Amino acid sequence: MSAFTLQSLMQQAGGLLPGRDDVARYLQDDSGLQAAGNPLMVLRPATTQEVVAIVQACHREGKRLTVQGGRTGLAGGAVPDPGDVVLSLERMNRVESLDPVGGTVIVQAGVILQDLCRQVEAQDWYFPMDCGARASCQVGGNVATNVGGNRVLRYGTMRELVLGLEVVLPDGTLLTMMNQGLKNNTGVDLKHLFIGTEGTLGIITRAVLRLFPKPRQRHSALVALASSADLPVLLKQARTHLAGLSSFEVMWREYLQAAARVTGLQEPFAGAHPITVLLEIEDWAAQGEDGAEALQRFVEECATRSLVTDAILPQSQAQAAQLWHLRDSIDEILREIRPFVAFDIGLPLRHLEDFLQRTRQRLEALNPQAHQFLFGHLGDGNLHLSTGPYPEGMLLQVESLVYQEVERVGGSISAEHGIGRVKKPFLHHSRSAPELALMRSLRRLIDPDQHLNTGRVIDF
Amino acid sequence: MSAFTLQSLMQQAGGLLPGRDDVARYLQDDSGLQAAGNPLMVLRPATTQEVVAIVQACHREGKRLTVQGGRTGLAGGAVPDPGDVVLSLERMNRVESLDPVGGTVIVQAGVILQDLCRQVEAQDWYFPMDCGARASCQVGGNVATNVGGNRVLRYGTMRELVLGLEVVLPDGTLLTMMNQGLKNNTGVDLKHLFIGTEGTLGIITRAVLRLFPKPRQRHSALVALASSADLPVLLKQARTHLAGLSSFEVMWREYLQAAARVTGLQEPFAGAHPITVLLEIEDWAAQGEDGAEALQRFVEECATRSLVTDAILPQSQAQAAQLWHLRDSIDEILREIRPFVAFDIGLPLRHLEDFLQRTRQRLEALNPQAHQFLFGHLGDGNLHLSTGPYPEGMLLQVESLVYQEVERVGGSISAEHGIGRVKKPFLHHSRSAPELALMRSLRRLIDPDQHLNTGRVIDF
Repeated sequence: MSAFTLQSLMQQAGGLLPGRDDVARYLQDDSGLQAAGNPLMVLRPATTQEVVAIVQACHREGKRLTVQGGRTGLAGGAVPDPGDVVLSLERMNRVESLDPVGGTVIVQAGVILQDLCRQVEAQDWYFPMDCGARASCQVGGNVATNVGGNRVLRYGTMRELVLGLEVVLPDGTLLTMMNQGLKNNTGVDLKHLFIGTEGTLGIITRAVLRLFPKPRQRHSALVALASSADLPVLLKQARTHLAGLSSFEVMWREYLQAAARVTGLQEPFAGAHPITVLLEIEDWAAQGEDGAEALQRFVEECATRSLVTDAILPQSQAQAAQLWHLRDSIDEILREIRPFVAFDIGLPLRHLEDFLQRTRQRLEALNPQAHQFLFGHLGDGNLHLSTGPYPEGMLLQVESLVYQEVERVGGSISAEHGIGRVKKPFLHHSRSAPELALMRSLRRLIDPDQHLNTGRVIDF
Repeated sequence: MSAFTLQSLMQQAGGLLPGRDDVARYLQDDSGLQAAGNPLMVLRPATTQEVVAIVQACHREGKRLTVQGGRTGLAGGAVPDPGDVVLSLERMNRVESLDPVGGTVIVQAGVILQDLCRQVEAQDWYFPMDCGARASCQVGGNVATNVGGNRVLRYGTMRELVLGLEVVLPDGTLLTMMNQGLKNNTGVDLKHLFIGTEGTLGIITRAVLRLFPKPRQRHSALVALASSADLPVLLKQARTHLAGLSSFEVMWREYLQAAARVTGLQEPFAGAHPITVLLEIEDWAAQGEDGAEALQRFVEECATRSLVTDAILPQSQAQAAQLWHLRDSIDEILREIRPFVAFDIGLPLRHLEDFLQRTRQRLEALNPQAHQFLFGHLGDGNLHLSTGPYPEGMLLQVESLVYQEVERVGGSISAEHGIGRVKKPFLHHSRSAPELALMRSLRRLIDPDQHLNTGRVIDF
């Protein structure tokens, strides 16, 4: 297929031309960014060979490529530049095979996360990745952005769940690294060049993923704390005493109140507590004690020691789902505070108090009218701060202010959303000059013509 | 320090010259390889700045560097070439700080693994890495070789336990990536270039490691199976029903018998079973059921279903230690079968039976007198096959034969020991031509003068 032209690939690889209504959706992602003009065409290959042919044709014809998964990213990485060839993986959406002996699955990049999870569970296995975009995000995008989500504390980010990858390099080389084992020490583990680099070094076409036995029980509890200073204590207690702890999700008071309002659900507690934590355990020890009892006893012991000041132990799946619905309602909350900035910060827990105090004070000084909503996967040191409304002209100032504070405590300007286009100007707050130099030289090595996802993450 | 010469660094950085008795130990590692001649000098820096100065001086003076940790490697990676400057990290042996809030520790590269584990446990935290060389291997070497060991099933390899690194590049650039969080998506996760690449791309000087709450209980059980075909079934059952499963160590009959003989311990079972599995759980749920009871009930249920044909549940720590002593006695066994080849294979479990049948048959055909001892971390798809004695002239043939079979089932020629010098000629059995090409171009990019650990892993 190496001699195919882009024009001929239009026919073979599900091509769409601008002007058709259905091309509009390829111009944006969930960051709110919108392409400034039309792409040259949208190609939707159905096989790895077609991806190779497209990349080779773009290379020959001097066209730039924008790679798209489910376009659920929050950093603008999937938004094309005018004139780009958009390559969407949506038709490579098959779960190719599940190995029930080794507990692994081979998938094409365009499989939707939720579809994968369901197909795996139907075969009595479990893929633990979960995030808000589950119904439309694609596995290839999950890998390219190293998705995190709600269960990182137990299972790791996507990086830890990927055993092997197949990648098409910017020059069209097919790099097959379909490793299937947990251990493989044969030189550079090349897949890490492509995990979390948002399609700037290659196009992920297939992956081998690690599976787990299906949990027999899943239980949640919502507990209230008197202060965020108690969070690390509760976290260590929960990690120590709750085998199977899978989530440790923190919501600050203003967030929980807003979540109740936008969802129409009742506020879970009668009183207003400064901090609440949603705990989840996935208990595989089906032969042993019931998970609900273990969770209840844990919460009671924390209450006895006054670490926990109030608690809700859901009596049904429906009640547990309501608690998670509160936790997942950030999109609805954001609609109320436009224009906003939504941060995705990683920071050492020991600096949490100090970071919050300074940052909130500075934001208040900047604009006392803006809300500050805080929640996060604190078990992973991942804090989501959403603040608005601000006058449009003030947004950059808000970003700079927060990222200065992140830098001061040695944090990360992106814990799980990635850099894309949106955070590219701020990357130096989290990465040193030698790191940036090495990243640039890697990109120059692998994509010397800079024709893959240009303008994202870092340039050279 | 950038203007220092190697001569002046001899004084400052704990230099040793060949001729002294104590230099002999820097000429070898646990692979059995021995340097063909003396190094130029051995330098033992005490600080990162001294490492930078040494690398810069070598760069300027055109000298090659061999980096050494505890010299416990089994692939010859630490053995210098004649005339090399040997850089030993042994004096950078401090645990710098432990963060009890976030559960992380910052260490210098030369800390001995066992010392680290003890210091961490004294502060009520836990670093779960464990391997046979624990008493002399160093954390920097553990990272550089991505050590695996006995608890990968639960905690991952060293790669999953490293949050951040400090690395000196071959040109003397100091690359500081001391990330402390589980989530950090800010471009290329550069640390993976240095994890498992055995010092060919940079010298690891410090690391941030992830800690876990200290387990309250640890229990083991030894169970016998009728056939290796039952292994995947038992593994999935154990992963499903034993919260806290940390080890799944398999010993074949010939291995267990030899282990009993060389250790002077009694054979654990009266009868000879084809396969035994050593299970370990680390039970954090101290408030819940006793771990020993859970393990006993699990084993009984497996016995009821005839999956397990015999079992030993140790009644004391001492008895459990004896079982682990059997499992850890490979070094003593190897002494009896020289000249031998000890393989460290990764393979998909579904191919285990087929791989073993063909490989054992072919080895027997080659030399019916040679023993074949098999054990492995099968929970990670990691099989150790040790075979000998062979006439010296036949060893290469043995390696080629086994690696052909590994390639046939899509396995890895090194699951955890690495490539070093010993497996370098066989790397193509596990990595494709495009992978090897990319690995070469990375090495050329980062060490264009090829002066760091030359002759290991891959050349360009």
